[in-house]
Amino acid sequence: MSRPLEVWFEFASTYSHPAVQRIEPLAKQAGVELRWRPFLLGPIFGKQGWNDSPFNIYPQKGAYMWRDMERLCEKYGVAFRKPAKFPRNGILPARCALASESQPWVGQFVRNVYNGNFVEDVDTMDPANVTRWLRQAGCPDPESLLAKVATEEEKQKMRARSDEAAALGIFGAPTFVVGKELFWGNDRLEDALEWAVR
Amino acid sequence: MSRPLEVWFEFASTYSHPAVQRIEPLAKQAGVELRWRPFLLGPIFGKQGWNDSPFNIYPQKGAYMWRDMERLCEKYGVAFRKPAKFPRNGILPARCALASESQPWVGQFVRNVYNGNFVEDVDTMDPANVTRWLRQAGCPDPESLLAKVATEEEKQKMRARSDEAAALGIFGAPTFVVGKELFWGNDRLEDALEWAVR
Repeated sequence: MSRPLEVWFEFASTYSHPAVQRIEPLAKQAGVELRWRPFLLGPIFGKQGWNDSPFNIYPQKGAYMWRDMERLCEKYGVAFRKPAKFPRNGILPARCALASESQPWVGQFVRNVYNGNFVEDVDTMDPANVTRWLRQAGCPDPESLLAKVATEEEKQKMRARSDEAAALGIFGAPTFVVGKELFWGNDRLEDALEWAVR
Repeated sequence: MSRPLEVWFEFASTYSHPAVQRIEPLAKQAGVELRWRPFLLGPIFGKQGWNDSPFNIYPQKGAYMWRDMERLCEKYGVAFRKPAKFPRNGILPARCALASESQPWVGQFVRNVYNGNFVEDVDTMDPANVTRWLRQAGCPDPESLLAKVATEEEKQKMRARSDEAAALGIFGAPTFVVGKELFWGNDRLEDALEWAVR
């Protein structure tokens, strides 16, 4: 018997890229059910006094992170290219993921968006890109979904989700949540899965 | 053939505790020579605008770190108790380690100081504690070493060492350095050792 694992992710987050590319086979192998939880780091960073990614605010940390990402992705066999723009706004695909988080194709959509940001190196707010990633993942009607997520109701759901993240004590992405335990970072993916099957 | 691995550590750093407790058997197994590099994070944090540990400045990150330390140390079988005071000033034992970094007993001294901070939960600036940790590690004359590290010359060496850390791009501890590659954090210890034997 295992407990479900919540995957809290933000599309601008670099270390979420290897985590989401790796997670589904590892979860399947462990027999752990995944629950996708898109949220926005912007409001959380804002409360800490940051109006940009800490990797931009602290340049030495940023320089290290890009090199570390290269090495990590090479180790995992995950495709990666340093994007021309960082961080990229991902609120449009995040709203799409939130509105679809119980759909069987959501994992593939999430991977497509991260590959768009960190491999294709293209705009994650371009509706044409988002439509393509949705369709490729198996979303039957991307146009209707894009229309739906433009409504005030869906925007409010995204804000509520980010408040929920803050209330859980989440301060970065990816964060894996099992029961009341938080596991922060791609580095904790294996530990989080082990916790879920304890 | 392997390359030496530099272990850059700061006695106040929490995640350096499991790293230094684990490193010697792992390095021996990998056939990697260790070079101990005590430095001070205070000046580096100061340049980032921090006058305290980021784990105190950002309380959610701090709360997470303490829980994460508990889980990690349990996983590794490393003793750990959340200290009553954090961060603790470790400049006195850091100067002792710097003056002794090529001594065969330095690794044991370093482990003793971390155990003092994160298991015994005692003052790392108390000369009686430092003397005890030195003697237990095998330092033949702790009293002379304490007198030596009180000199302006030794204090200047510590400042130069911390400038050297900043020049290498080090922004946190522990940091493992192999050639020109930096590996930040206890989580990267295994990767750093693998890099050293590449």
